[in-house]
Parts: sequence; structure tokens; C-alpha cells
Amino acid sequence: MTSRIRELSGSTPAMAQAFGDEALLSGALLFEAQLAAAQADEGLLSPEDAADIAAACRELPDAEDMARAAAHAGTLAIPLVALLRDRLTGRTAAAKVHLGATSQDLADTALMLQARAGLELIGRDAARLADALAALAAKHAATSMLGRTLLQPARATTFGLRCADWMLGVDEARTRLLREAEGALRLQFGGPVGTLDAQDGRGVEVSRRLAARLGLAEATAPWHGRRGGVVGLGGALAILTGAAGKMARDIALLAQTEVGEAFEPRQAGRGGSSAMAHKRNPTGCQVALSAALRAPHLAGALLSSLPDELDRGLGGWQAQAPVLADLFGLAHAAVVAMADVAEGLEVHPDRMATNLAAADVGLDFGQAPAIVARVLAARESRNG
Amino acid sequence: MTSRIRELSGSTPAMAQAFGDEALLSGALLFEAQLAAAQADEGLLSPEDAADIAAACRELPDAEDMARAAAHAGTLAIPLVALLRDRLTGRTAAAKVHLGATSQDLADTALMLQARAGLELIGRDAARLADALAALAAKHAATSMLGRTLLQPARATTFGLRCADWMLGVDEARTRLLREAEGALRLQFGGPVGTLDAQDGRGVEVSRRLAARLGLAEATAPWHGRRGGVVGLGGALAILTGAAGKMARDIALLAQTEVGEAFEPRQAGRGGSSAMAHKRNPTGCQVALSAALRAPHLAGALLSSLPDELDRGLGGWQAQAPVLADLFGLAHAAVVAMADVAEGLEVHPDRMATNLAAADVGLDFGQAPAIVARVLAARESRNG
Amino acid sequence: MTSRIRELSGSTPAMAQAFGDEALLSGALLFEAQLAAAQADEGLLSPEDAADIAAACRELPDAEDMARAAAHAGTLAIPLVALLRDRLTGRTAAAKVHLGATSQDLADTALMLQARAGLELIGRDAARLADALAALAAKHAATSMLGRTLLQPARATTFGLRCADWMLGVDEARTRLLREAEGALRLQFGGPVGTLDAQDGRGVEVSRRLAARLGLAEATAPWHGRRGGVVGLGGALAILTGAAGKMARDIALLAQTEVGEAFEPRQAGRGGSSAMAHKRNPTGCQVALSAALRAPHLAGALLSSLPDELDRGLGGWQAQAPVLADLFGLAHAAVVAMADVAEGLEVHPDRMATNLAAADVGLDFGQAPAIVARVLAARESRNG
Amino acid sequence: MTSRIRELSGSTPAMAQAFGDEALLSGALLFEAQLAAAQADEGLLSPEDAADIAAACRELPDAEDMARAAAHAGTLAIPLVALLRDRLTGRTAAAKVHLGATSQDLADTALMLQARAGLELIGRDAARLADALAALAAKHAATSMLGRTLLQPARATTFGLRCADWMLGVDEARTRLLREAEGALRLQFGGPVGTLDAQDGRGVEVSRRLAARLGLAEATAPWHGRRGGVVGLGGALAILTGAAGKMARDIALLAQTEVGEAFEPRQAGRGGSSAMAHKRNPTGCQVALSAALRAPHLAGALLSSLPDELDRGLGGWQAQAPVLADLFGLAHAAVVAMADVAEGLEVHPDRMATNLAAADVGLDFGQAPAIVARVLAARESRNG
Repeated sequence: MTSRIRELSGSTPAMAQAFGDEALLSGALLFEAQLAAAQADEGLLSPEDAADIAAACRELPDAEDMARAAAHAGTLAIPLVALLRDRLTGRTAAAKVHLGATSQDLADTALMLQARAGLELIGRDAARLADALAALAAKHAATSMLGRTLLQPARATTFGLRCADWMLGVDEARTRLLREAEGALRLQFGGPVGTLDAQDGRGVEVSRRLAARLGLAEATAPWHGRRGGVVGLGGALAILTGAAGKMARDIALLAQTEVGEAFEPRQAGRGGSSAMAHKRNPTGCQVALSAALRAPHLAGALLSSLPDELDRGLGGWQAQAPVLADLFGLAHAAVVAMADVAEGLEVHPDRMATNLAAADVGLDFGQAPAIVARVLAARESRNG
Repeated sequence: MTSRIRELSGSTPAMAQAFGDEALLSGALLFEAQLAAAQADEGLLSPEDAADIAAACRELPDAEDMARAAAHAGTLAIPLVALLRDRLTGRTAAAKVHLGATSQDLADTALMLQARAGLELIGRDAARLADALAALAAKHAATSMLGRTLLQPARATTFGLRCADWMLGVDEARTRLLREAEGALRLQFGGPVGTLDAQDGRGVEVSRRLAARLGLAEATAPWHGRRGGVVGLGGALAILTGAAGKMARDIALLAQTEVGEAFEPRQAGRGGSSAMAHKRNPTGCQVALSAALRAPHLAGALLSSLPDELDRGLGGWQAQAPVLADLFGLAHAAVVAMADVAEGLEVHPDRMATNLAAADVGLDFGQAPAIVARVLAARESRNG
Repeated sequence: MTSRIRELSGSTPAMAQAFGDEALLSGALLFEAQLAAAQADEGLLSPEDAADIAAACRELPDAEDMARAAAHAGTLAIPLVALLRDRLTGRTAAAKVHLGATSQDLADTALMLQARAGLELIGRDAARLADALAALAAKHAATSMLGRTLLQPARATTFGLRCADWMLGVDEARTRLLREAEGALRLQFGGPVGTLDAQDGRGVEVSRRLAARLGLAEATAPWHGRRGGVVGLGGALAILTGAAGKMARDIALLAQTEVGEAFEPRQAGRGGSSAMAHKRNPTGCQVALSAALRAPHLAGALLSSLPDELDRGLGGWQAQAPVLADLFGLAHAAVVAMADVAEGLEVHPDRMATNLAAADVGLDFGQAPAIVARVLAARESRNG
Repeated sequence: MTSRIRELSGSTPAMAQAFGDEALLSGALLFEAQLAAAQADEGLLSPEDAADIAAACRELPDAEDMARAAAHAGTLAIPLVALLRDRLTGRTAAAKVHLGATSQDLADTALMLQARAGLELIGRDAARLADALAALAAKHAATSMLGRTLLQPARATTFGLRCADWMLGVDEARTRLLREAEGALRLQFGGPVGTLDAQDGRGVEVSRRLAARLGLAEATAPWHGRRGGVVGLGGALAILTGAAGKMARDIALLAQTEVGEAFEPRQAGRGGSSAMAHKRNPTGCQVALSAALRAPHLAGALLSSLPDELDRGLGGWQAQAPVLADLFGLAHAAVVAMADVAEGLEVHPDRMATNLAAADVGLDFGQAPAIVARVLAARESRNG
């Protein structure tokens, strides 16, 4: 909705593509083609009709046209199905397109296909981030630094323990995200009111086949009005964004010139200032902090949509798709930014030692290295 | 960030344009050109330099290129200023571009210019909505209907009183929006830390001239880190969206087939169903309700950004522009949708009478017509 | 709802009292007594009945009993009116209690009476905060310090400019709050569906008299379902809380031991640590930052309640009173905490000078003192 | 913070007690007593000292006194530890209280103990709700009714399918809640900066023993600044609240007099009106809908607190406890209200049949009963 320039920190090119119009149309057409195939498997239509429908689904329509028509109609399914029928004019398959399905079946399933692609991107970069942090934790397990609580000097700790904590935050968030995805990434198929009518009594079987064809889990029952899965997924994305934001907050504080203990990697042309040549802004942290500021409210919007009306509500579920897409963008932007930061982090053990000594709180960092070792061992046994 | 198709109800074409990349770049270039002109007025640079800069600002750069470069740099100003200097290679003006300004001066001022355009759109359609509701209130001041409280039959009221209430909700929200806009739509100009250094001691005068040239109010002091204005504007947009949503909720309830008292206007191709030919969905209400579900959380995100760090913070103010742009989109979508609904609303006084009689709560609608008259008179005296 | 211990930073004793059960019951009984008096003025009941009702309203019932009964009934009005009728057994006034009013008339009016008391508390302490900041701004108008943007050293500025900015943030928020209060603090009186039935056709007059008796503004029309006023008030409280939070964020950053430029006043027994004797935690800032973290979401909750159902909705307006009460508590806690901080702030110009010199960004603080002077002059002319 | 009367729908008496001051103080004292015992087990102090500390922890201090002292100090631990030391004056144990622990160790652990109690309450009533819905689903698997989408008549469905959907919503939310609780309900113990210093190098062992004594899980590492667990728990509570709210929304719509298909059970003195004797308000639905309106924003507040500063931040984690307590209250209020509604729901199959026939959309409810059977079978195999 907003400009690409202004949204410079709100997504990544890869995620913008995964949730872009072409991906949405591809998913929608895949749904229609595979629905016809699944129905042919169950004898609801002929293999020829299914093949004709598949052929009609091959070419992507113009996104701009579809956007305009969908806005007028109130849903994408109406102009898209009309287009397919148009492409099949004169063939029996024309009457078989979208057979017994409802707009929301298409919308939700296409959204889940996009979410799957989005999760792959996030999973990959979250792993990259956690791996980089694990390496830093191991390397700096006994690198002394000042622990700061309530933004005041407290006691000695180690930089490795801080990194291990960031890593655990990311890993725990990634685990939750995968678990939520497992529950959420399901086929949506139920027809107008979720009764699978108009499937010749074979709706459950069509549903099973369609899910398999799309590589999505089957739902115990259509979930048109039961949105805990989508909402839980959004919450997990927001927590992951927050874990990246936590790390960003800390690095921005450590990179203050008066502290000087850790810095984002230098990158040509990044973090400069339009007015001050000496500036080296923590631009990666800025991206993650902006995302962590916005994501909680988007997750809240998803939660607010839960008490939807009756079989398929008015305004609630329709609001979820763009909000979830925004959350994928923000989470990926934050995770990629911090993965880049973690992989190239400049650490200054000397400044850490100096600041610690200056604080005069002693040098005993307790069992910090042992805790780091324990955290890394647990990670290895989990991953290995 | 998200797809145009999926955002079918999140903005309007006019608002998408007002907050699009071209409008942003136009505003940014206008800022640079007028800044140079204002500085020439105060003798900081020669009229020739100012003219050269104005000429360099005439052609819009490619939005895609700028988006990519801005994302890398962390701010639009860096690549844009570089581009202008490039265009001025070999001329003395090259060193005078963006003189003493900071990235945020440009970003905030361009945002305010867009906000001004957005407010015009919203103001026009909110007036259209309120006018249509005023006409309905007058017409139906004594049209009996059942009042329903806690979704249960209560007492007799009139449809005109309901319309007057919707109208007051919109009018009060519009008044607040204008008031907030008055406080918020200010020039941003202070230089890196808001001290107006590098203006030869004439910064306050440059600021005054620049504000006048752009048609924006002057701020008492730069507001890089004082964001109450932007946040208050966002809150006012969310309240207006909620006023539209309130009306949408009511009409959707009155349009239930078992109630049947009022309906959105029929519009060819709108509100249909991909599965059910008989359906007449309240698509306008859907748009407004989706917007009213999302807007509160975006307004909340703006509020969360207030405790920004020091002179110009990290991640807070940067998150405001895309969120505010989204709020403009949602508010306009909601207001336009309900203005269309109000202008063509189908009212069924007969069903109102039948339902009221069936509820057996009496027919006395008290002073409803007198209250309507009072509301309309107050409006007239305000507007007249 | 939560414990007093845990809510140690969520309100103040004075605000907790203003929104406590006794104040609520007092307001509710005042409403009933003055309603009877206003109706007697208009001849709806006899002066004797009004006097009897006033007498019955004198003694506060047990809060615990009322809470239990109200939770069961779904609204306070039911057990409270029953109690009054009970107290009037055998007198003609028994049938005249709460004449033609509805539960929400009582609930909203009592809330507005509490809000008025709450606004007095906040207004007083926000003025104290702004005054203290104005004094600091004047004193330190030319006290050099390092300006920091994106948490990195930028250019020279002055501490007075920073204080002037905080002050403006508070003053602007206070102005908005007063303006919103002007719109919001209205009598609620309309009867079950807002038609003023059951007032013998004298409802508008009763309404006017009742408003005058309670010292509240009259509403153009009952606002049972038109909640922009309450919601706008909540938003203004959240912005004020954010202005306090902004100042708290900055002071916490300046009080970092490596920066050491400003500190909360020392206060015996405050800001210590259960483990570290040397700690001096910025407890006032903690209170304001916690409040500024929570308030945006409460303001968001109010916004979410706008699209209520029909004449008086189900669950929406009922949720507003406790949320608004929480916002008053958080705003007051934040403002009081920062007023105490501002009044006793420890400023270290020497450290400011040292840090500025170390940053090597020059010493030119531009027109900072002139801007401070301008801000203070504008304030004086506004206040004087 | 707010009044008990006003919070009539924001919690339950049982949950208010679980998160009340006495429970908090009990948990805090239990933490101190068991910490001493665990440290005695590891030889950090003598069994006599541990016994003395246990004895000093027996009597609860006055909650009002503690609240006042904690508000001044900025944390409960300071006055509580001072009190214990006072009680142990003259004994060697006095110096051993709270040995090596930090305020947040106590605060978080006490919160987790309260959360455990709260989860038991919610688990029990959520099971009661789901069981009642399962029974309704079975009974009405083939009870025809009109399916309504976008609040318009769509196709035939069955009331059993609607109940099965509500049940799945609750069951899925309960499963998530238990999973999140498993991750979140951990001992907090790390000392000032989470290094377990001051435990004679036996901190990990003390931690293990303390966790076992309190019946809480051990954390891989202290989680002072890693708050995904608490935040995830809050999100799960909000989703459960939303599942109850979804059911409430539907029942409120079905109970509209013009629809008349299902009603909350009649309960003497509940759901009446202060003005209208005929009213039968859906008070249980009101409670759940109010809760579902507020909970998303509280879950959002928890998410916003994630990017906390360094080892233990300023204002973020401190805000979590009261917000989480509020979420427990709202979730329990919603679940209890809807469990009562489900157990006594009045269903009107005759009106369902009449409305379905009047809608003229056919009578074919497809595979609704088969889907219900499948859902119930899956539940049985899960529970059995």
C-alpha cells in the first residue's frame, strides 16, 4: 500500500516477492488447477475437464487488472474465476471451475502457500543469525565485560553470555514459529459454509487429495471462522522480530561512542549521514528496531480479528491476509539485518575490559562460561 | 509492501497515489529546491545556485532505483542528494544542495506534504459522508424503528436519530482531524541536531521563508524527537475510521435478512459470491470494518514510538512514516466506502415498523425527532 | 484487578483514589440525587420525592457487596437502584429513582465525574513538570553538550534545547488533553435508547439542568454509541505519557555511567538494588518508561471499541471504563515521576563538555540558545 | 489498579486471588525460603540458617505496607528482604537471606508460581467449556440451520458443526496455552547479571535444586532479558480469550430477537436492565466480548516489551507482570462466562428450521454431520 521507498526497512526483496501479486495469483491458480485434479480423482469431473482447467490456469493474468476487479467485487475469487470460465468458453470444463469452493477457500489456501515460502526464507536467515551468534558465544565465552542492569553498571559478565542469550532468544522464537506453522499451514477447503456440500458426498476425500497435491496439511474441519492458527503464526513472527530487536537494542547501546564495545560491520555506503561525514549509523539495528516497534501492533490486530461473525465473518478474516503479509516482511527484514550484523560484528574486548575496570564492580563473572557451554551443548544436541 | 490485490480494501487509488513513490520524490525534491530558494533569499547562496538547484530538482528519478539505494543507505536523503550533486557536477551549486539540512528534515517535510494532500482527500469524502447522513437524518427524523441495546430489543427510536448519531460521530472525528492537522502539518527544519547550525546564524529566518514557500506552518522548534503531532494525527485518523466502522457495523446488522431494515446500494458486480448467486454482501461495510479493525493497532504503533532516543532516535521516527501512510489509506478506504453506502442507502421503513411492532416494546420514540432537529440545527450553525 | 504491590508503577495513590470504588459510588449516587432534583425542577416529581431520593443517596453502600452484585447483574445500576428503592420502601419516591434513565447514563456520567477529578491531578502535575523543564531550559540555554542522533555522536547542541524540547512535548500534550477533555466531559443522559422518552417531553430540559447541577457539559445528543470523546481522551493521555517517557528515555541514557551527564535526584531508599549496594537505578524513569510502554496499547483498546453495535452495544463501551481508568493511572504515574525527576535533576555540565570535546565534532551549537529563548517566550505569552 | 466494581467483567474471584497480593507475597517468601534450603543442600549456608530463614518467611507481611515500600524502592525485593533481615536480627542467617539473588529472580519466580495457579484455573474451565461444546456438537450434529457468511444468508449447515468449530477453537487454544506454559514456567535464578556469581561456583546446582523444590522447570540460562516465554504465554491467553469471544459473538447474533435460534441460560438477576423489565441481556457474551476486545492489546504490550536494554532492562520487564496478570484475569473471565453459557445453552431447532426455510437456500447441509463426527473422534483419540 505504501511506497517502496518509504518501506525501505519493512521487508526484503525476497519476502516482497513471496507475498507479491504474482505469487498470490500463482497460488490462487494452483489451487484451482489442483482442486479440479483432486475432484477428477474422485470422479466429480472428467480428467479432460481437469486438464482443460489446468491449462486455463497456466497464464498469470495482469495483476493491476485483477487488483482493480477484486477491489470492486470484494474478493479476488470472483474476477479470477470469471476469467478462467472465459478462457474455457465453449468447453464443459467452464462450468466445473472452482466447483463447490468458496472465495475464502482460495484466499486462505493461497495465503498458506505464500506463508510456506515466507517461512523458508525466515527459517534460513534465522538459522544464519543463530549460527553466527553461537560462534560469537563460543569465541567470547570468557571475554569480560560490564553487565548493565536498568542501564546502570551492575557486575561483571562475559560477552559470550550476552551472545548466548541473544542466540537462545532467536532459537526459542524459531522453534515456536515452526510449531505454529505446523498447526497453521493447512489447506482451507469447505465450500460456502464449510459443509463440503456440492462435492457429491466425497468432500472429505477431495479435501485429503487436494491437501496432498498442494503439500499442505489437512484441517480436521474447515477453519473459515476459526483463526487461531493464522493468529498464532503472526504472534510467533512478532516474537521472532522482538528477539532480533532485543539484540539490536543491545548492540546500539554498546556502539555508543562513550561505550564503544561492539559495532555493526562497516559496509560501504551504509549508515552514513546526509549531513555528517563522520557518522556511522547502526542501520541494521535501526531496521530491526523499527520492525520490533511495529510487529507487536500487527500481531495485536490479528488477535483482534478473532471474534468474527458466524460462518465466515465480515471484515475480520479479510483483514488478516495483508496484516500477516506485513508481519512476514517485518520479521524477515529484522532477521536478515541482524544476521548480517552478527556475521560481521566488530567486537572490542579491550574497551570491554576498560569499561569494566572503570566501573569498579569487581571482575568476577561467576559461572558465565559454564552457562555458555551448557547453552551451546544443548543447542548441539538439539540440532545434531 | 503487500500486494495490491490483497490490499483491495486497505486504501483507495487516490490515496495510494498521494502516498506513492512519485509523490514522495516530488515532495523531497520540492523541499530541496525551496530550501535553496529560501537560503538564497537570506543570502546563504546566490540566486544562480538556487536556480541551478531548482533545475536539478525538476526530473523525478526512477523510484525503484531510489528505493534500493535508500534501503541500503538507511535513508532516502543520501542517494537523492548524491543524485542532485551528480546532476550539478561542475557547478558551484553542487556543494550547496541540502545545505545544513539533515535527512529527517527532508523525510518529515515530504511526509507532511503528502499528509496535506491526504487530508484534502479525506476531508472531501468525510464531508460527503456527513452530508449524506444529515439528509437521511432529516428525512427519517420520525421514521419509527426498534432500538436495540446489547443486541436485544429495547425501546422505540427513529432511524433519523441513528443517522444523526452516525453523522455526529463523523463530524466530531473530522473536527478533531482538522485540529490535529493544524498542529501537525509543520515544516521540519533544524539540521543534524535541531540547532540550525550551518545557516550563518539566519536559520530561523530560512525556516520561516521555507515554511511559507511550502505552505506549511512553522514549528516553534524543530520536532525531530517530539512526535506528538504526527502521533495525534494518526490517532485522529483512527477515530475517523472507527466512526465509519461504527456505521458499517450497524448497517451490516440492519441488513441481516431476518432484520431487513437497511441495505447497501446495489452496485453491478459488487458484493457477489464466487459460490452463491443469491448473495448480496455488504462489501462497503466490509471495507470499513476491516479498516476499523486494523487502524487502532497502527495508531498504537505510532504511540509506541514516542519515547525515542535523544536528538533523533533509532528506529522510532523511521517507523512512523509507513504507519501513518497506512492509516491514511485505511481511513480513506473506510470513509469513501461508507460515503457511497450513505448516498445510496436502501431504507425499509415498512420492515422497521413491522419489527418494532413484533418486539412489543411500545411505539413511543420519545424526543427522537427533537434531538435530530437540534443536531441538524447545530450543524447548520457550525457550517453556515 | 491486579495486586497493589505489582502495580507499584501503574498509578499513584491519589489517582487510585479518584478512580476507586468509593469515588465511583459517590459519583453514581450524585447522579441519582441530582437527576431527581433536575426532574423535580421540571415538575416530573415532587420536591419531597427529590429530597427523599437525595437522602437515600447519602450513605455509600459497601463496595465489596456492590462489586459482587454488579458482576452478577452485568451492570452496577441494577443493584444500586435496587438498594435505593429498598432504602425508600414505603415512600412514593421509591418509584421515582432513576426515572427514565438507563444503566449506561449512570455509568458514563460517573466515569466522567471521575475523569474530571483525574484531569485535575494530571493537569497540576503536568504543569509542575513543564515548569521545572522551563526553568532548566532557561538555565542551560547555552550549556554545551553533544547531540546524539541514531545513538551516535552528531553535532554540538545545548542541554537547554533538550529541556525546551521535553517541555514543548509536555505542553503540547497537555494542551491536547485539555481540548479533548472539553469535548469528552459531558453528561450522559438519554434513557434506554437515547430518545429521552419517559421524561414527559421535557427530557432536553432535564438534561440541561442535570448537566448544570453536575458541572458537566451538555451533549448535543446522547453518546451511548458515539465514543469518540472517550477514545480521544484516552489517546491524549497516552500521548502525554509518551512525552514523559521520551524524557525518561533520554535521562536514562544520559545517566549511563559512561555518559554521566544527568541523573535523577538522589532520594533515600529509592533506586537501590537488592543485590548491589553501589547501584543508583533511575527508578523515576523506569516508572515513566513502563507506563509509556503500556499506555499505547490501552489507547489502542479504546480505539478498537469504536464499532459498537446499534444503540448501545455488547462488550465495547463496557470495556472502556476500566481501560480509561488504567490510562489515567499510568499517565499520572509517569507525569509525577518525571516532575519529581525534573525538579531535582542533577546536571553535570563538566561531563557534557568533556564528552562533547571527546567526540570531536566541533563546538558550534548553532542557534540553540535563540531557539530556547523563542520557545520560552512563546510559552510565557501563552501562559501569561 | 482500577475499582473492583468497574472491573466486574475483567477477572473472576478465583483468579483475582491467584494474582492477588497475598499470593504474590506467599510466592516471594517461598522463593526465599527454598533458595536458602537449596543453598544449604549445596553447602553455601548451614541447615540452621536455612531453617531460620524458612521460619522468618512464615508470616505474610501487611500487603499495604509492602506495596507502599515497593513503590518507593522501585521493586518488592528491597523491602521484603529488609523485613526478613529484620526478623532475623542477631542471627547469622540475617546475612544469608536472598544470597546472590537479584530482585528480578524473586519477581519472575513469584510470577511463574502465580501463573501456574492461574493456568490450573483456566485449564479446568476451558475443559469444562470444550466438554459442553462437544456434547452440543454431538447432540446437534444434524440439526439444520442457516449458515450465514458476511452476515448474509448463505447455505444450510448444522448447529452441531458450529458447536464443533467453537470447540476446536477452544481446544486448539488450550493446547497452545499448555505448550507455551511448558516453555514459560521456569525458575528465574541468575543473580544480578545472570552469571550465578556469589554461589561459590555451585550456582547451576543450586538452580537445579531450587527449581525442583518449587516444582518449576529449570531454564537453560537465566532469562532476565529473554522474555519470549512470558510473551508467548500472554499471546496464548489472548488467543484463548478470542476463541471464547468468537463463540460469544455468534451466540449474541443468534440470540437477536429476529433470529431467536439460541440463548444464554436464564439466570435469576442476571442480564436484566435498570430500565426495561422485558430485557434479557446476553451478559455472559458481554463478559467474553469485552475480554476479547481488551486482551489483544495486552498481548501486544507484552510483545512491545521484548527489545529490553542489556542485562536487565529499564521499564520493559517490569511492565510485564501486571499485564500478564490482567491477561489471566480476562482469559478466565471469558472462559468461565462461556462455559456457563455452553452448559446451559437454550437451543431452538424449530426457529433454526423456520429461518432456514425462509432463506430459501435449500436444505442440503452437505457433510456437516460427518465433519462433526470426525472432529469428535479426533478429540476422543486425543483425550483418551
